[in-house]
Amino acid sequence: MFESAEIGHSISKRTYAREVPKLREALLDAQYDLFQDGRFPVMILFAGVDGAGKGETVNLLNEWMDPRHIRVAAFGDPSDEERERPPMWRYWREFPAKGRIGIFAGHWYTDPILDRVRRKTKQPQLIQSLEEIVRFETMLADEGVLLLKFWLHLSKEKQKKRLKALEKDPKTRWRVTKTDWRHFRLYDRFRKVSELALRQTGSASAPWMVVEGEDFRYRNLTVGGTLLAAMRERLDQKPAKPAADRIPPIPPPADNRHILGALDLTLKLDRKRYTDLLALYQGRLNLLSRNRRFRGRSAILAFEGNDAAGKGGAIRRVAAALDARYYRIIPVAAPTEEERAQPYLWRFWRHVPRLGRFALFDRSWYGRVLVERVEKLIPPPDWRRAYREIVEFERMLVDDGIRVVKIFLHISPEEQLRRFEERMKTPYKRWKLTPDDLRNRARWDEYAVATDAMFAKTSSRHAPWNLVASDYKWWARIRGLETIVKGLSDGVDLKLPPCDPKLAKAIGKMVKKAKKGGRALKP
Amino acid sequence: MFESAEIGHSISKRTYAREVPKLREALLDAQYDLFQDGRFPVMILFAGVDGAGKGETVNLLNEWMDPRHIRVAAFGDPSDEERERPPMWRYWREFPAKGRIGIFAGHWYTDPILDRVRRKTKQPQLIQSLEEIVRFETMLADEGVLLLKFWLHLSKEKQKKRLKALEKDPKTRWRVTKTDWRHFRLYDRFRKVSELALRQTGSASAPWMVVEGEDFRYRNLTVGGTLLAAMRERLDQKPAKPAADRIPPIPPPADNRHILGALDLTLKLDRKRYTDLLALYQGRLNLLSRNRRFRGRSAILAFEGNDAAGKGGAIRRVAAALDARYYRIIPVAAPTEEERAQPYLWRFWRHVPRLGRFALFDRSWYGRVLVERVEKLIPPPDWRRAYREIVEFERMLVDDGIRVVKIFLHISPEEQLRRFEERMKTPYKRWKLTPDDLRNRARWDEYAVATDAMFAKTSSRHAPWNLVASDYKWWARIRGLETIVKGLSDGVDLKLPPCDPKLAKAIGKMVKKAKKGGRALKP
Repeated sequence: MFESAEIGHSISKRTYAREVPKLREALLDAQYDLFQDGRFPVMILFAGVDGAGKGETVNLLNEWMDPRHIRVAAFGDPSDEERERPPMWRYWREFPAKGRIGIFAGHWYTDPILDRVRRKTKQPQLIQSLEEIVRFETMLADEGVLLLKFWLHLSKEKQKKRLKALEKDPKTRWRVTKTDWRHFRLYDRFRKVSELALRQTGSASAPWMVVEGEDFRYRNLTVGGTLLAAMRERLDQKPAKPAADRIPPIPPPADNRHILGALDLTLKLDRKRYTDLLALYQGRLNLLSRNRRFRGRSAILAFEGNDAAGKGGAIRRVAAALDARYYRIIPVAAPTEEERAQPYLWRFWRHVPRLGRFALFDRSWYGRVLVERVEKLIPPPDWRRAYREIVEFERMLVDDGIRVVKIFLHISPEEQLRRFEERMKTPYKRWKLTPDDLRNRARWDEYAVATDAMFAKTSSRHAPWNLVASDYKWWARIRGLETIVKGLSDGVDLKLPPCDPKLAKAIGKMVKKAKKGGRALKP
Repeated sequence: MFESAEIGHSISKRTYAREVPKLREALLDAQYDLFQDGRFPVMILFAGVDGAGKGETVNLLNEWMDPRHIRVAAFGDPSDEERERPPMWRYWREFPAKGRIGIFAGHWYTDPILDRVRRKTKQPQLIQSLEEIVRFETMLADEGVLLLKFWLHLSKEKQKKRLKALEKDPKTRWRVTKTDWRHFRLYDRFRKVSELALRQTGSASAPWMVVEGEDFRYRNLTVGGTLLAAMRERLDQKPAKPAADRIPPIPPPADNRHILGALDLTLKLDRKRYTDLLALYQGRLNLLSRNRRFRGRSAILAFEGNDAAGKGGAIRRVAAALDARYYRIIPVAAPTEEERAQPYLWRFWRHVPRLGRFALFDRSWYGRVLVERVEKLIPPPDWRRAYREIVEFERMLVDDGIRVVKIFLHISPEEQLRRFEERMKTPYKRWKLTPDDLRNRARWDEYAVATDAMFAKTSSRHAPWNLVASDYKWWARIRGLETIVKGLSDGVDLKLPPCDPKLAKAIGKMVKKAKKGGRALKP
């Protein structure tokens, strides 16, 4: 892997002096085209051997191009706000917007490689991390990010020579730290692990560029030239014609039966039972949220469902059980300008809560495979890949100890019509009814196909879907609460207050009914 | 102050049951109007005596209204990212956007009051904090924020009774902490300090509403009713007709002489001197940025100047001396959608850097009193108040230990024209010339009046303006670097490398010339 970067590449002073001005002008030109055009962001990663010139190259690119539109992200020890979120969160928050260049001086390779070099992890863990990275970078590429990964290399002798030279010069002595020498002693191991990492993650959409770091002229021209070629090629492509869809469309089931059709929509509760159960579950949820164990965790609750299915009402019943200081409701509507300049999932990553907090999503990232698919707002390849990306996103949350509970509220078309009419009639509810609702209603069957696919592809072991029959609001709210309490109490040693035996019996019945009628989907 | 909230206000169960449904509906209605209309944000503060129902009321408002458009901000111990910024930073980041409601369960009164109660501060410090708060809240009001401040009160006996009652009930026992009892022992002191705070900060634009907290029905109806009345009144006002401008316009000086006119624009450096001085000052700046002392501080450098005055070039020379991982350049262009939904200074607060980092602003918050004033993008009262707000903003930064250096690059109209022509001719510079530049040029005299006012009103002791003659770029860049090095080295014990005596002499000359020609404005 690194052999080609140990052959002593070098560029003469004269050639360098001749090439640099042209390269700089062309790079600047490309940068302005990128900025004017704003079609995609550029992410540049620098990794490699200490002393091979990572820092210098980052500074060089800032000098050669217009640093006003470059964002350099350095990562020291994570801040407490970062530690309380999944490891990838700190990278997402540093993403450059479309039209900008982001340089990552630290990145998602740093920890997996160093942890393995220091034997903090075993081989399978490393492999797993690398696989995650491949999926992550594939997503970036699919989102239109131009990702360039540079590995600056030095052979072992060269590294030693370089460190010694830096140490000798009083002006550069400060740059050689004890860590550098400690890393040097691990050179062989570092090389072996890195070689594996590069091989595993050098996919076609994000290949590694291994550059010999010894001769700065060679290094600079190589990095600059590679960056220029990559930007130029992408800029000169015709603006994104949606990729041809090579997957044949999947027709709806011939018998027109859908997963949601299996829900028993006649399930209901009388007022007395509803009131009792509401108090019971809200109490339990409140206890849970104040439980010690929970303070070291956070929760993300996602509510989906047809228009007028009662998402708002269900969310309010959940919120009422929580301390308002510790939850935030995120109503998902059209993305803002800053959100549109980023990969799709960015707008959800930014709302990942701190420890001990709740994020309640009123509609969620599933809009990608529901409304955006059905209304043809995005080309099919985009929603096709979204299933996998979403599963991965949720897995990262769950792996970090976040509780993820997804609830789908389902109503019949008849009940929806009834609710629409009611909204029409009630003055202070009229605002709730929009032309979108009627348009969505006209596409009922298409939505049924889309939800089928969604349940099938995203009801993962770590974050299963919970389908709730919602023709009767009381039933739906209690089922929702019950699901959430169950989802959150897993692993939390909660001393529940004794439950009235009558109520306990009623719950048993309800759960049994729901198991027949409603359902939690298992993958 | 609190007497009216110790008379045992109460509402009967029956009245409450009759009033609440009406109130809730009206509140919900107002909230949707606010959301649809998106004209202003609502900020609600809850302060007062422990046990008077602050937490309950926050939860209540979430229950009565649609919690999806309410953002509750709670503040525990500051995170490290917060501690590394001025104290107000954490509040700015929680501001609700236009059309939304933000409830502050903790806020800018908490620390000043408690610090004084615990004798961590003296009276004058408290008074000063309160004055700052008044200015801050006036700014909010001027920006169109509807700010409502509720003080929930309990008399001393009532507080004791309440705490004991809560402690007795196993269900609510958890809510009474040791801190509550410690606060209780300080009741008299707390009351005295609070009384002062409320009197000092109860301005007409943001009055305090003192509410007796004993009877929850009275408390709920009062808070809900006050909120409703305030929102309704503002919503029913005609959309913001710009307030009549009562201040007579200030004509330009009769002799047409301006502050910038005093700059000697013939100042220049030859190539040799420029190269030497550039190396010298970049070296010093680099040393400074890596100095231990500096790691506990951060710096904000703001560059202003006419079009084509060389801001970009000057910034690049500064950036080249710094490690790219530790600075960020913020080019100030049109605000994004998220920024437009916030008070003016929000978009600058969000870029306040962490410790040890640099923020370089290419144009800055001064756009408010330059382009926005001259181009009449905002009504005169808005830019008139901006001077004071900006001085206050910079003072907060400086008080927090941040170095603030402001540089204005000035060129003559003739030199500007020459540069415009050059840009026209050079293909890769043509993008730099926009119709805006020509429009601005046509308003040269108006800009001169605006810059005069800006220098006069915002060159404060803590953040003076530095005017730099820029007809000769080399001169301007060196003067800029010199100013920054001087601004940053103040208080940093820097061992500078010895300077070549010839160069030292040249510097002495330059500084002397600049003192005559260029100038640092003193207030």
